[in-house]
Amino acid sequence: MKVHGSPLSTSTQRALACFYEKDIEFHFVNVDMGAGQHKSQNFLSLNPFGQVPAFEEGDLKLFESRAITQYIAQEYTDKGTQLLLSGSKDTMAVLQLWKEVEAHHFNPPSTKLVFELFYKPLFGLATDTAVVEENEAALAKVLDVYEARLAESKYLAGDQFTLADLHHLPNAHYLMGSSAKKLFDSRPHVSAWVADILARPSWFKVLDMQKQ
Amino acid sequence: MKVHGSPLSTSTQRALACFYEKDIEFHFVNVDMGAGQHKSQNFLSLNPFGQVPAFEEGDLKLFESRAITQYIAQEYTDKGTQLLLSGSKDTMAVLQLWKEVEAHHFNPPSTKLVFELFYKPLFGLATDTAVVEENEAALAKVLDVYEARLAESKYLAGDQFTLADLHHLPNAHYLMGSSAKKLFDSRPHVSAWVADILARPSWFKVLDMQKQ
Ligand SMILES: N[C@@H](CCC(=O)N[C@@H](CS)C(=O)NCC(=O)O)C(=O)O
Ligand SMILES: N[C@@H](CCC(=O)N[C@@H](CS)C(=O)NCC(=O)O)C(=O)O
Repeated sequence: MKVHGSPLSTSTQRALACFYEKDIEFHFVNVDMGAGQHKSQNFLSLNPFGQVPAFEEGDLKLFESRAITQYIAQEYTDKGTQLLLSGSKDTMAVLQLWKEVEAHHFNPPSTKLVFELFYKPLFGLATDTAVVEENEAALAKVLDVYEARLAESKYLAGDQFTLADLHHLPNAHYLMGSSAKKLFDSRPHVSAWVADILARPSWFKVLDMQKQ
Repeated sequence: MKVHGSPLSTSTQRALACFYEKDIEFHFVNVDMGAGQHKSQNFLSLNPFGQVPAFEEGDLKLFESRAITQYIAQEYTDKGTQLLLSGSKDTMAVLQLWKEVEAHHFNPPSTKLVFELFYKPLFGLATDTAVVEENEAALAKVLDVYEARLAESKYLAGDQFTLADLHHLPNAHYLMGSSAKKLFDSRPHVSAWVADILARPSWFKVLDMQKQ
């Protein structure tokens, strides 16, 4: 199994967190994004959008971080953490729902905020405060819904940590190290949830890869 | 089974297309969005984001159009069109991949274009040409990837029509009736694919609901 990506890329991190949760060995192929390796012919044959991560296992080639996590969680049920809910059709549907909420509600504003508040300063670019304000307002509304949900169950899809939570890890990590932290801190259930998921050993292993 | 929504809403249409493909009877509850019914306490108990569609079956309450289609396709395998690929783990992973591509690559620019080119004129608002140009450029790149993919297989996930194709129907329909049509017409495989999926009887049934 090969994962192609960069330890500094949030989408790569999303896939990596899943491999560590599932306790699955993989070979990490570093893609030098500074050198534009993700736009090379070789990489485009793995992902025609020229983005990390990409994944290979035998003849199977995948990209899109959430397609990779779903494949791994579903295929390797006997290994590591159970990241899908088995049981009734209703619990599986509710998990699917909260995965969609992450993708369509949390991800868009949080990705823009991480870009403005983390990546831009890292590359010496100026943060656009209007973009920050607009997306903080959008994220605040999403976190209001999370606050109500997390008052009912410990994790988004129920009482168990699942892919629906895991998919939040990279953006939540960078936001908690930025001025957007206040949006989490001001909501007690969201604040407890984000502290809980960011303390998972899998996430520390992902962060450790940045040091290497 | 109840579907709450508006026949003019693209997300509602996405869910409806799935019910018609699966030949499943449902009770449609019209949400009067002009009167703000989607922000009423009653509707917010179905979807805390105050958006259509929402779905109810016994105790199960869902929202997010793609969570609804996935539930219906997975739960009612014995009815209507098979919208998921059975068979090997690899074909299921590839279907998941193209569903992610729709959600993260096709949906964002196409939703903005449908808003600028269809909904804004409908409500007497001025189209922002800068937004149109930016999103047409983004969509063109996505359709380049689709063109290469659809040269290899008739549908996105393989030789069979699946949810990965179905999820495109509403935005593809409105774009084909707008100036963005050229982006599809100029790519032969994309053009044949979009003509094929928009000709499905399920889609005509969705459009018929607008007349009632
Ligand atoms: N939806 C994709 C997003 C992938 C993505 O945006 N990757 C970024 C790094 S986090 C990238 O490769 N950016 C380079 C580019 O877009 O050219 C996923 O979840 O895998
Ligand atoms: N990701 C959601 C999007 C739902 C959505 O944006 N619905 C629109 C109509 S197409 C809506 O209800 N808009 C009203 C609002 O956002 O206030 C889905 O796929 O169901």
